[in-house]
Amino acid sequence: MLAARLWARQRALPRRVGFSTAALPHTSLNPVTEQDVAHFSKFLAPNSIISTLSPNPCAPDELETYNNDWIGRFHGQSTTVLKPKTTQEVSEILKWCNDHRIAVVPQGGNTGLVGGSVPVNNELILSLANMNKVRSFDPISGILVADAGCILQSLTDYVAPHNHIMPVDLGAKGSCQIGGNVATNAGGLRLLRYGSLHGTVLGLEVVLPDGRILDQLTTLRKDNTGYDLKQLFIGAEGTLGVITGVSILTPPAPQASNNVILALPTFDNVLPLYQTVKRQLSEILSAFEFIDRTAYDLAVKHGQGRALSEEDTKGAECFVLVETSGGRREHDEEKLNDLLELLLSADKPLINTGVLSQSPAQFISLWALREGVTEAVSKEGKAYKYDISVPLSSFKEVVDNTREHLRSKGLLHDKAVKYVLGYGHVGDGNLHLNIVADAYLPEIENALEPYIYEVVAAHRGSISAEHGIGAMKTHALPYSKSAISIELMKKIKQVFDPRGIMNPGKVLE
Amino acid sequence: MLAARLWARQRALPRRVGFSTAALPHTSLNPVTEQDVAHFSKFLAPNSIISTLSPNPCAPDELETYNNDWIGRFHGQSTTVLKPKTTQEVSEILKWCNDHRIAVVPQGGNTGLVGGSVPVNNELILSLANMNKVRSFDPISGILVADAGCILQSLTDYVAPHNHIMPVDLGAKGSCQIGGNVATNAGGLRLLRYGSLHGTVLGLEVVLPDGRILDQLTTLRKDNTGYDLKQLFIGAEGTLGVITGVSILTPPAPQASNNVILALPTFDNVLPLYQTVKRQLSEILSAFEFIDRTAYDLAVKHGQGRALSEEDTKGAECFVLVETSGGRREHDEEKLNDLLELLLSADKPLINTGVLSQSPAQFISLWALREGVTEAVSKEGKAYKYDISVPLSSFKEVVDNTREHLRSKGLLHDKAVKYVLGYGHVGDGNLHLNIVADAYLPEIENALEPYIYEVVAAHRGSISAEHGIGAMKTHALPYSKSAISIELMKKIKQVFDPRGIMNPGKVLE
Ligand SMILES: Cc1cc2nc3c(=O)[nH]c(=O)nc-3n(C[C@H](O)[C@H](O)[C@H](O)COP(=O)(O)OP(=O)(O)OC[C@H]3O[C@@H](n4cnc5c(N)ncnc54)[C@H](O)[C@@H]3O)c2cc1C
Ligand SMILES: Cc1cc2nc3c(=O)[nH]c(=O)nc-3n(C[C@H](O)[C@H](O)[C@H](O)COP(=O)(O)OP(=O)(O)OC[C@H]3O[C@@H](n4cnc5c(N)ncnc54)[C@H](O)[C@@H]3O)c2cc1C
Repeated sequence: MLAARLWARQRALPRRVGFSTAALPHTSLNPVTEQDVAHFSKFLAPNSIISTLSPNPCAPDELETYNNDWIGRFHGQSTTVLKPKTTQEVSEILKWCNDHRIAVVPQGGNTGLVGGSVPVNNELILSLANMNKVRSFDPISGILVADAGCILQSLTDYVAPHNHIMPVDLGAKGSCQIGGNVATNAGGLRLLRYGSLHGTVLGLEVVLPDGRILDQLTTLRKDNTGYDLKQLFIGAEGTLGVITGVSILTPPAPQASNNVILALPTFDNVLPLYQTVKRQLSEILSAFEFIDRTAYDLAVKHGQGRALSEEDTKGAECFVLVETSGGRREHDEEKLNDLLELLLSADKPLINTGVLSQSPAQFISLWALREGVTEAVSKEGKAYKYDISVPLSSFKEVVDNTREHLRSKGLLHDKAVKYVLGYGHVGDGNLHLNIVADAYLPEIENALEPYIYEVVAAHRGSISAEHGIGAMKTHALPYSKSAISIELMKKIKQVFDPRGIMNPGKVLE
Repeated sequence: MLAARLWARQRALPRRVGFSTAALPHTSLNPVTEQDVAHFSKFLAPNSIISTLSPNPCAPDELETYNNDWIGRFHGQSTTVLKPKTTQEVSEILKWCNDHRIAVVPQGGNTGLVGGSVPVNNELILSLANMNKVRSFDPISGILVADAGCILQSLTDYVAPHNHIMPVDLGAKGSCQIGGNVATNAGGLRLLRYGSLHGTVLGLEVVLPDGRILDQLTTLRKDNTGYDLKQLFIGAEGTLGVITGVSILTPPAPQASNNVILALPTFDNVLPLYQTVKRQLSEILSAFEFIDRTAYDLAVKHGQGRALSEEDTKGAECFVLVETSGGRREHDEEKLNDLLELLLSADKPLINTGVLSQSPAQFISLWALREGVTEAVSKEGKAYKYDISVPLSSFKEVVDNTREHLRSKGLLHDKAVKYVLGYGHVGDGNLHLNIVADAYLPEIENALEPYIYEVVAAHRGSISAEHGIGAMKTHALPYSKSAISIELMKKIKQVFDPRGIMNPGKVLE
């Protein structure tokens, strides 16, 4: 399903971003040659090599899925994809590439949204797709050890019979890999409840650029023996080494999940509401999602969410979706009912109305409303998407100011920007700011950047809350990180990858 | 209270460990001179300098608390303690020390258990004690930003009126500082529930060895913009820089806490019990602590725990303390009661008996039993304490094998080793292995080391689950970390601290 969508999108957006070899930090990197492919074929199975180079050249279009990214904005010109089956094979590939200064792009499910997973030029693509075995699972501790290429959904399915869930969940779960999740420090829908991968990843096996294997694949929850090196690979987007194995703590599955959608008269009520909800629901609160009126209306327009009647939504400035996950249905429902009663019976109610899902189907349809915003936006036009962290209290102001800014530039009309909307994870301070335009236009881009990055920097926010830097935002890194931070990052890159073969042009310019 | 105990312990253990300057990795480090002190007095208040050097020499015993560690095993010979009040002052101190190659030991509450917080020789001691202000607290997000020198207990008190708690809690909370907690990646009693500091610390302000300030003190839950440098300082034990500020996520306070002690006929039941308890209590389970029979008997002997009758404990091989913390007392009690019923009514019960605390006083006394083991051990003799991570299933085997090993060496008798016992956090895989001897004897130490480290390595465990490496275990690091890991750690040390002034002789040899 995801794959189908991938191609549809790509055709819609054929624009090529003009990266050239000059953009590579190390000009001394070499392209893959026939000799290299001949070498790889000595230790890789034939079906682990897809290359347009001899001895067994494939058709160029076989490489398309690997060379083009999910949003259809970044396009590589790699000639060769390798799909090793073991850590040892990855090690031999990297050793060779390091010795011969061949640049390497690690690729997981290729669902990343910042162009990190495709070459900026003709780098070799190292796909983890063939490393997809669970290595071990301990149902008592809940610790799962898996190859990096395991698809998130398949791991979810694997632990389900043991009454466990993955601590991370996201829309791309049918395609993205656990190694890619770790490499991007993916956030997703469960972060509020289970915390970030920096806390839940217990160990990693990483092949360093020189081919040596860094085995930190422990299954220990506690280990204070020196610097926690694995943390550096979490979110490094493949620029420090190739993750081949992941040890991760999976939480027990909640026995019951419920949700409720709330319509709020004013944005000012979101924060007091969040505080009340946190206090009332305590440990069973698992999501608190914000949807502004524009986002809601678009989702409804495009067929999502029949949950609230028109009567219900009249006068609502925004909406909040609350989810609970807990150990016992009756207890959770009681807490949720009491919350609604408290909210509705208040002297000055924080909400206009609230609808509690009464069945699994309703539960899904409430979520579809929130998740349908993405879909609706893409149906409505071309979207500029900013995934930022700003203080919760500024969510509305950031959206409104961006709209006004575009209006002041004369860009808010049918043939330019049609909608400016915001939604996101209140619990995480993560706002998805979407600017929906009739077409991608340079004047819109110029009006948006660096404007939005400056707004984020003024709030001491993050220019990329979840999606990373990739190839898309290297230029914007200084808006979130100080010169000293960037200098230290570069030195760390130098420690792990002195020849600069790992994913050049990504994260650091 | 802690301070009184500190001194009592120290007198009891006057043995000096013979560290010499030769143990320092950088032989080119200089001692503090009068000129240096004169320089510091230009920008530090008089009461921020305690030095036996002119112009205002103090009495040598004023330095005792700073030069000696909590367990009384490590003793420095520093002449000078500086207690800066601002990040800027820390910066100026480090810049001077770096320029003049003066080694610096950052010191928090000096409660560390591996000799990391005191000089191995005559390094300058930089105490954070005067940096003890809360910078901000947001009751909606629960994010606290505080000076590194804030005492953990005072932060707990600070957030309590807002219905929040600190995500970390430990026995030393009245003395240890949040900066010290971060520098040691302290685990403690809440790790099972709230995860490690790698997940809950959101940002750090760190003064680098050259005096530059690395400001990553964000209050963002999500920020994927490059390598997560702050992670390196979490658990670095002051070898990479001085932490001056900490931003940390504080969870909402649970509304109710309950506990129960269970007596088990056999150790084999611990793991099935853990699984059942996790399933039944789900998100309200906040501790699952294991106490073996020897540990239990010692605690009772020394006046702890009148919770279980002799009848109750007859035939019990070990005990488990379960704690719940949840959002509503009735719900939690119902879950706990149902659990007990399920356990006791089983065909082959996993437990002999269980006692549920019925009042706050009983709640405290059940915890006192578990926490009293430490006290009891210290009353009983001289303890060799190993804080290790091994698979849960091996807890008993490790304890039993150690006892047999000592017996086979002829060391298990009244004048040598009296008890070998184990207790710890099952939920975290963290075993406290204690060997209680009549006196510290070289033959016991030789029998224990490297024996225990080898056992840990064979289990792919951690030689230091919580307490770190400090000065005590640098030689044992290779039992938990590979040569490649150690090489990378050294290179990272080199990036941050090329002159090696930060806490020399700690963590890395
Ligand atoms: C529909 C959809 C919804 C999404 N929702 C979310 C969301 O809620 N939260 C969120 O955080 N993100 C989200 N994302 C983006 C997210 O980053 C990715 O989906 C996912 O984490 C990437 O995994 P992947 O296997 O596809 O990695 P890829 O896209 O293949 O790679 C991503 C980056 O990681 C590197 N990489 C991949 N595998 C490895 C490896 N084994 N070793 C080293 N480096 C590697 C690549 O070089 C690249 O830089 C979404 C994407 C889509 C398409
Ligand atoms: C009674 C008792 C119970 C304990 N229980 C636990 C427990 O349950 N779990 C656990 O993990 N530990 C426990 N500990 C040990 C634990 O490591 C410390 O108590 C605490 O985390 C250290 O904090 P501190 O401020 O005392 O640091 P210190 O002891 O002063 O320093 C510890 C290390 O951190 C460095 N350091 C301190 N402050 C800074 C700073 N601001 N910047 C850079 N480096 C710094 C020091 O150089 C040293 O290497 C216990 C200790 C005691 C005495």
